[in-house]
Amino acid sequence: MRRSIATVCLSGTLEDKLDAAAAAGFDGVEIFENDLIASPRSPERIREHCADLGLAIELYQPFRDFEAVGPQTLARNLRRAERKFDVMERLGTATMLVCSSVSPETVDDDDLAAEQLHTLAERAGRRGLRIAYEALAWGRFVDTWEHSWEIVRRGDHPALGLCLDSFHILSRWDSGTGGADPARIAAIPGEKLFFLQLADAPHLNMDVLQWSRHHRLFPGQGAFDLTAFTAAVLDAGYRGPLSLEVFNDVFRQSAPDRAAVDAMRSLVALEESLATRPAVTSRARAALASPPPPAPELAGLAFTELAVDGESGHQVARALAALGFAHIGEHRSKPVQLWQQGQARILLNAGAERATAVSAVAVESADPERSAQRAEALLAPRLPRTTGPAEADLSAVSAPDGTAVFFCRTGAGEQGWLGDFILTGTVPSTPAGLTHIDHVALAQPFDHFDEATLFYRAVLGLDPRHDSESAAPFGLVRNRAVTDPRGRVRIALHGAVLRRGSWAPGVPDPQHVALATGDIFACARAMRARGAPLLSIPDNYYDDLDARLDLDPALLAALRECHVLYDRDEHGELFHCHTEVLGDRVFFEIVQRHGGYAGYGVPNAPVRMAAHRAARR
Amino acid sequence: MRRSIATVCLSGTLEDKLDAAAAAGFDGVEIFENDLIASPRSPERIREHCADLGLAIELYQPFRDFEAVGPQTLARNLRRAERKFDVMERLGTATMLVCSSVSPETVDDDDLAAEQLHTLAERAGRRGLRIAYEALAWGRFVDTWEHSWEIVRRGDHPALGLCLDSFHILSRWDSGTGGADPARIAAIPGEKLFFLQLADAPHLNMDVLQWSRHHRLFPGQGAFDLTAFTAAVLDAGYRGPLSLEVFNDVFRQSAPDRAAVDAMRSLVALEESLATRPAVTSRARAALASPPPPAPELAGLAFTELAVDGESGHQVARALAALGFAHIGEHRSKPVQLWQQGQARILLNAGAERATAVSAVAVESADPERSAQRAEALLAPRLPRTTGPAEADLSAVSAPDGTAVFFCRTGAGEQGWLGDFILTGTVPSTPAGLTHIDHVALAQPFDHFDEATLFYRAVLGLDPRHDSESAAPFGLVRNRAVTDPRGRVRIALHGAVLRRGSWAPGVPDPQHVALATGDIFACARAMRARGAPLLSIPDNYYDDLDARLDLDPALLAALRECHVLYDRDEHGELFHCHTEVLGDRVFFEIVQRHGGYAGYGVPNAPVRMAAHRAARR
Repeated sequence: MRRSIATVCLSGTLEDKLDAAAAAGFDGVEIFENDLIASPRSPERIREHCADLGLAIELYQPFRDFEAVGPQTLARNLRRAERKFDVMERLGTATMLVCSSVSPETVDDDDLAAEQLHTLAERAGRRGLRIAYEALAWGRFVDTWEHSWEIVRRGDHPALGLCLDSFHILSRWDSGTGGADPARIAAIPGEKLFFLQLADAPHLNMDVLQWSRHHRLFPGQGAFDLTAFTAAVLDAGYRGPLSLEVFNDVFRQSAPDRAAVDAMRSLVALEESLATRPAVTSRARAALASPPPPAPELAGLAFTELAVDGESGHQVARALAALGFAHIGEHRSKPVQLWQQGQARILLNAGAERATAVSAVAVESADPERSAQRAEALLAPRLPRTTGPAEADLSAVSAPDGTAVFFCRTGAGEQGWLGDFILTGTVPSTPAGLTHIDHVALAQPFDHFDEATLFYRAVLGLDPRHDSESAAPFGLVRNRAVTDPRGRVRIALHGAVLRRGSWAPGVPDPQHVALATGDIFACARAMRARGAPLLSIPDNYYDDLDARLDLDPALLAALRECHVLYDRDEHGELFHCHTEVLGDRVFFEIVQRHGGYAGYGVPNAPVRMAAHRAARR
Repeated sequence: MRRSIATVCLSGTLEDKLDAAAAAGFDGVEIFENDLIASPRSPERIREHCADLGLAIELYQPFRDFEAVGPQTLARNLRRAERKFDVMERLGTATMLVCSSVSPETVDDDDLAAEQLHTLAERAGRRGLRIAYEALAWGRFVDTWEHSWEIVRRGDHPALGLCLDSFHILSRWDSGTGGADPARIAAIPGEKLFFLQLADAPHLNMDVLQWSRHHRLFPGQGAFDLTAFTAAVLDAGYRGPLSLEVFNDVFRQSAPDRAAVDAMRSLVALEESLATRPAVTSRARAALASPPPPAPELAGLAFTELAVDGESGHQVARALAALGFAHIGEHRSKPVQLWQQGQARILLNAGAERATAVSAVAVESADPERSAQRAEALLAPRLPRTTGPAEADLSAVSAPDGTAVFFCRTGAGEQGWLGDFILTGTVPSTPAGLTHIDHVALAQPFDHFDEATLFYRAVLGLDPRHDSESAAPFGLVRNRAVTDPRGRVRIALHGAVLRRGSWAPGVPDPQHVALATGDIFACARAMRARGAPLLSIPDNYYDDLDARLDLDPALLAALRECHVLYDRDEHGELFHCHTEVLGDRVFFEIVQRHGGYAGYGVPNAPVRMAAHRAARR
């Protein structure tokens, strides 16, 4: 099926938007009227430019407040429509979106609405154009998909059909505020479905118009079940474009080329979920492009690479040694050190471009090459590897936050990535008790939080979990983790809710690598004895723990002594402590999970952030 | 009355917040528990620091989920409270805020709630402490002020009283979702009102908890009638602090010193409105500090000063000449040119620090010195003036956006500001038909939009109008104007809804000076004949005007020919056209108002912005 995007999803002028949509591989666009009006190019010139870019103009939108009005208003509205038909003919587009009226002039009369839409469709049909009628969730009288379908049915004209918009339908269905079960869309004759607009959104308890205009997301970034919804539309026989229409305050100001790639990735992932969901009929499935290769099983984090420069390299190396890591290898051709403790491996790369940051994350894949092919099918740029004669051909792609994601098999003998290193030491018997990497926490740029979540989720085949917001000292922070079902690969994403200014740091929080232990107190004592730069936590925090949780006094004393933070939920407990920030923006966390605790100690993050600030003053 | 602010209003660590509150002149603070918990300082050290800063600790908050629970939970909650009383004694603060419970463990039993709060108050009273009980708007069973008062009344303990929070009360009263008329608060015995928290907010149709946590504003920045509310509380006999408690995503990340000044300005303005509102009783009024001097009448904009550098100075001067301005004077001691047409005066200042921007706005005041005194009372920093022997002592203050605001009397003969200029030419007989400055449009930094509105409104004694949002090519833009009732002084503020990144310009829109004419078509033709750099508007815009409004064909042709934009509302019509952007970020607008149109053509702004971008490509 053709893939399309509404110009309103993207930032910039019409020309910026068209270029971005074409570069991301879309087959077509919906032209949002305001974008055309503000363009210095004539409709003919826009038509040519789209043709040059390989973009069909799938829809012209929106035409508002048309139906169920008195005769004088009808005459004015038909005149207005004819002028817009002129524009459409010049653009070379056949379908016009007509939204259900919100005007005080409209009356509650389905027959009148149907009759007037019939008249409009008759005028459109004479020109070879057609009308796609859509129920806005806040339409004055027509505000559900089944009501718009009833009017289209009564209107009974071959040039009159429905436009279905997932937001208008699912916002009301999911919140229980109206509309019939979207599964029943499958019963509509396919030839009456003229257009399908797709948007996701988080569940918000707010005015539906404001929710729609500001908070839509690309499919897979929100809470709606777009797979089931789209499956119903395909089952009905719809074979027009899958078209994204997302109003979002952030996308409105983000670089359009990136946003268009994010949009396309969301469509590919949606198509994959359609292609692999058992309930989707084979007839519907046949209409879709072949999906990306399925995600191979992931067995854990093979290593994390930190970019360092001369000074921070020494600082991080000293800290690793104090945490009980041993420097056991040197890369054959690059200035990269391998440090290890238990199965936790850290690479220090002094040749990277980014100073003191998590520069790469490596996942253990059952099939690294297939993982990389999947990533490419999901629009992840493959990273070029300059491989020397003795070096493994590690597959890697670049994530939206700039982190390199490697796919590897550590146990693959000669062919494994460890073969790239000359081993100069042996792995010590975990002197501080660290066993493996629990998770990596990556700070996301403000504009790209939802893009990053979709990227890691779709490319690695993980599930998003633990969405939360915390009030940190310098502003609100969003947190979301993506993990596999067994919790062996955990990537924690965090970012500012609003872009920061000069007072508050632009990145609210450094990135970090969390290391797992089975005994955090022994671990913390051993590390402190070795001179590790562990972070001090205020006494006030422990007084509050005592007030809130009435912990065993011995446990409380140990937490206080070792500067260990504590969290618990209905599944279990978390104990965690941290190093100070090393270089600009990296630190290590030590975590011990008890029971089924699967979170990240987010309630403690503000305390940790304030402690980090105090330590740097 | 004492002025206080909750630490949760401000960004940073507890130390940053206390310093900012003291510097802005607050008498006290509410300490938000999370700020204390994250502080490395002991309660004793915080107490000392506050004493050094001259800050009383007026309240410790919040204590959650206490009342109407089973005996085991009650025992746990009392233990928790005793630990917090320990902290309060160490801090030296007497009052603890207890919020109505949201816990699933609480039951709907007012007598039980009252009895348990009595027990808590008894424990507090033994230590010389007291309990201020507050109904959260989303409390499980207690969610209105009158319900919390009923429980406090039944609880009947001298150490048990009410905390009233304007947000919790007015959010529900204004939206008609619950609560008794806040005017009835005046009937509560004053000694039972232990604390008053003040917050404003815009009217939003959303979940009240999210509204409260993210969108509160300082008094006068939102839509609530805080004057009437506060008057009722004062009438009841409350004489404790007026304390601000504002949860706001932007303030959470803005520089705390600035936010604290903004907060203090809002309190001074609120106190002024209390002191001058006839319905406020003299008993209540006597409790307030004396208000700032009343705002003198303003008669218009005397001049606008543009900062220019060498290159932009020539460019702006050429444009002014083409717009029909004459260069009629030179400042006696500074590199400042005076340009005039009709009563519109533009100063070009080549000695200013800001390159190509609106650097100053001068208002005609009936009493410039009183205007300046009022501004200072409202925390506007007075600008130092280096006045030479022949120069008028112009009073000026600095606005939050960095614009200098001058107060002057142009017709004051020898003492007037025109005396500072050596007149080298004569005012021409309005060759292009411009009569005066209609308005000045100032771009506001993202973090400071609400601060700026309050500043211009309070300092100049203007009213905020025409609040709107528009979808501009690079992101959403907020617009709000402040004007006097007769429309003689109009300042239009605009700013990005979200801080922009590297793709979209940080300031979405340049600043501009709008010049009034009685005949825009003659004006535009004369200017074009003189070579003015007028902005071209796309044909598509006029095609849409035709479709929408069915204008007289001759009018439409004239608009199209002259590149004039058109807007109308129920009061009248606006015709406007623009120059291209001069230098970095200044342009001129020509406006003609018909009938009672009092707006700013905001619907046309996206078209104008796209045209400006096209012109610069």
